[in-house]
Amino acid sequence: MSDNGEQSDLAMLRDRLRAFAEERDWEQFHSPKNLSMALMVEVAELMEHFQWLSEAESAELSEETHQAVAEELADCLLYLVRLSDRLGVDLKDAALRKLEKNAQKYPADRVRGSSKKYSEY
Amino acid sequence: MSDNGEQSDLAMLRDRLRAFAEERDWEQFHSPKNLSMALMVEVAELMEHFQWLSEAESAELSEETHQAVAEELADCLLYLVRLSDRLGVDLKDAALRKLEKNAQKYPADRVRGSSKKYSEY
Amino acid sequence: MSDNGEQSDLAMLRDRLRAFAEERDWEQFHSPKNLSMALMVEVAELMEHFQWLSEAESAELSEETHQAVAEELADCLLYLVRLSDRLGVDLKDAALRKLEKNAQKYPADRVRGSSKKYSEY
Amino acid sequence: MSDNGEQSDLAMLRDRLRAFAEERDWEQFHSPKNLSMALMVEVAELMEHFQWLSEAESAELSEETHQAVAEELADCLLYLVRLSDRLGVDLKDAALRKLEKNAQKYPADRVRGSSKKYSEY
Repeated sequence: MSDNGEQSDLAMLRDRLRAFAEERDWEQFHSPKNLSMALMVEVAELMEHFQWLSEAESAELSEETHQAVAEELADCLLYLVRLSDRLGVDLKDAALRKLEKNAQKYPADRVRGSSKKYSEY
Repeated sequence: MSDNGEQSDLAMLRDRLRAFAEERDWEQFHSPKNLSMALMVEVAELMEHFQWLSEAESAELSEETHQAVAEELADCLLYLVRLSDRLGVDLKDAALRKLEKNAQKYPADRVRGSSKKYSEY
Repeated sequence: MSDNGEQSDLAMLRDRLRAFAEERDWEQFHSPKNLSMALMVEVAELMEHFQWLSEAESAELSEETHQAVAEELADCLLYLVRLSDRLGVDLKDAALRKLEKNAQKYPADRVRGSSKKYSEY
Repeated sequence: MSDNGEQSDLAMLRDRLRAFAEERDWEQFHSPKNLSMALMVEVAELMEHFQWLSEAESAELSEETHQAVAEELADCLLYLVRLSDRLGVDLKDAALRKLEKNAQKYPADRVRGSSKKYSEY
């Protein structure tokens, strides 16, 4: 909850996905193991759009492909949020902690533009 | 932005990741193609924790594994947010649209508890 | 080549895939980077068949699913052989070396039936 | 078996992996579901080497990276062979059937050098 009582994006999605699964009696399928596989499959469907494109082409998608990619990104987020919920992980907190950790691991003044440092990222 | 001017979770993470990459001159590596690969690799590191566990075991992780898994979930979210930003996709909007689409595709009263319907999900 | 001049399975597949790509002028798309993505996408299509099944169910597929899975396994092998060829890796030799390494790493009398040892595999 | 009684590469690897698992009592972990996850994780470890490289760089690996990549390719093949065995799929036959199917689907004189046709591959 934010200060004015409004729910965060990720908490809102978590609650809607939880209700969605409950209404359909789908919790039985939603073990972390299975959800991690489903997430992986969605990420592969996303990546498939890029596999034969050059890096430059991957940044200039047709309108049709862009729309399909946006839907795959959504699928990935939904499974990621659902998996986090089933594991009792607060995804926002985890992301903020990781950002902090990355900032310490990769000091901007030391790694700037370095592909060597980057390749160890 | 929410009504009181507070930024949403996903927009906040997007902006922090954008600044992080700019400060390090890392945009050159962040083509959608490359970021989709990085996202995939993180999801595999997440899934690796579950590969030899039963479904039940995957829901009862040790404290140590739970912490490691939370960090992998964070990595997945960070790359997913970064990739969406590079593609100009509003991840929250895309997720809400997909939730709506799923609600129409899987009416609760028709698919409840059905693994057959579920397997086509 | 085996002693009687017959080519091994993997070398035969490698040569047929090489000719297949040459005849279609597809080498231009077959960078190791791209082929690793294509392999990943095929493995995800394979894994998708198992994502909502229990472990027991995954060993008792319907005839229809079994046939679809066999075709996905073939796709995985073909991309794996093609990728190895583009990298100049002799896949059979690499596999034999790895078998030897695994035999030393996991002595049968020490790790038998141990899921703990196994989980570190 | 080839005519002179010599076993094919893939059948030899299948038999060695089968014995390896039996000696360690590891069949209990080797459900198709689990093995598909393990295969996926190995492919991701392979792909990780390429994620920040350009396509050209991915074809010119350092000796150290080349050796690491060869070992990942071996891991992929071993899990692919093991998974096929657990499913009762003859991997060589499946690959030959798929090659035939691909030859009919992509006639060389029609698709030569066409990235459009290729992108639908």
